[in-house]
Amino acid sequence: MFVTVEGVEGAGKSTLMDLLARALESRGIPFLRTREPGGCGLGASLRPLLLDVSSTLDSRAELFLFLADRAQHVSETIRPALARGAWVLCDRYADSTIAYQGYGRGMDVERLQALNDYATGGLWPDMTLLLDLPVETGLARARARNGREGLTQSEGRFEAEELAFHQRIRSGFLARAARWPERFCVLNAALSPQMLYKQALKALGLSD
Amino acid sequence: MFVTVEGVEGAGKSTLMDLLARALESRGIPFLRTREPGGCGLGASLRPLLLDVSSTLDSRAELFLFLADRAQHVSETIRPALARGAWVLCDRYADSTIAYQGYGRGMDVERLQALNDYATGGLWPDMTLLLDLPVETGLARARARNGREGLTQSEGRFEAEELAFHQRIRSGFLARAARWPERFCVLNAALSPQMLYKQALKALGLSD
Repeated sequence: MFVTVEGVEGAGKSTLMDLLARALESRGIPFLRTREPGGCGLGASLRPLLLDVSSTLDSRAELFLFLADRAQHVSETIRPALARGAWVLCDRYADSTIAYQGYGRGMDVERLQALNDYATGGLWPDMTLLLDLPVETGLARARARNGREGLTQSEGRFEAEELAFHQRIRSGFLARAARWPERFCVLNAALSPQMLYKQALKALGLSD
Repeated sequence: MFVTVEGVEGAGKSTLMDLLARALESRGIPFLRTREPGGCGLGASLRPLLLDVSSTLDSRAELFLFLADRAQHVSETIRPALARGAWVLCDRYADSTIAYQGYGRGMDVERLQALNDYATGGLWPDMTLLLDLPVETGLARARARNGREGLTQSEGRFEAEELAFHQRIRSGFLARAARWPERFCVLNAALSPQMLYKQALKALGLSD
């Protein structure tokens, strides 16, 4: 089972990942928890470049760095874990690139789809949990967290972008969910973490 | 004028670049000398990853890193230099990626052509000087140089590959030259550096 968790900033992805990891652990299901960018050795070198607030990266250069990270992550980490029968829980994947770079920044969505298909060798998740919530709520949460953890400089690049950009991203995620309804499960991220977790468990067939 | 110098390992690209830079300088022609990978700030971070002998980079991840470097290099360095009327002299460019990854490693050549076209926004050189010579001669020269400069660890990755691989690369470069005869000038790199230089000057319309 290859599961990705996607959504706008501040949707609660990390909290849900924590709870799902504990659920798999308590059920004795082998799993690998990972993330993009930065889930492999290469990605760890690229992550600071990609999340640097002051970066003047060309949009195509940025896209290719995400794709390089993803290709390596799939080949080095995700495929081997799936091959040994483990679940893979991944925080962001190709849907994020297409929502952010495509819907958000206006790059051609079909081209991004084809490039991601190529980068991953056609590996798409079995299930994508999309944490959906109003952009204003998500940004307020993300800002509170960044202020709290002092991440404003190093990880705040995307969060510094304007509201309209984030609205396009939200719509992009929802458009993808509508296109692949059997893969996507859209969850209302305005719910409490516990309610969200219960709905996610159900979607994954892990309810008690 | 956007000029690239291409060729197999040990063909004498650096020596020719030195002589051409001096020729432009002495004629008072403004120019920028650069190289790939590593011609911009991003590339400088990526170059060690790309040239690391011990790297276990996935072939697609490697390709996307080269493309990221190229997209940034074109947008940050090459286009601005051309826009202010300078010549750009670049040591390796898209033809190298296609010769090495495509003809050398067997990735789809037409796909690589399209990806490079996208990464560069359609910017191809006005003139490509292809330094052609028998693979055995080039490898022997490159090995002597690497031994001399102690680069075997850090920059010897491609040179460590087998002869057949380099023969495919040489054929790939020649196939590209045959496809775009108006852009390519194939020079016999077995000639002395001075003879090679004279032929290159002539090709660039810079003869005295």
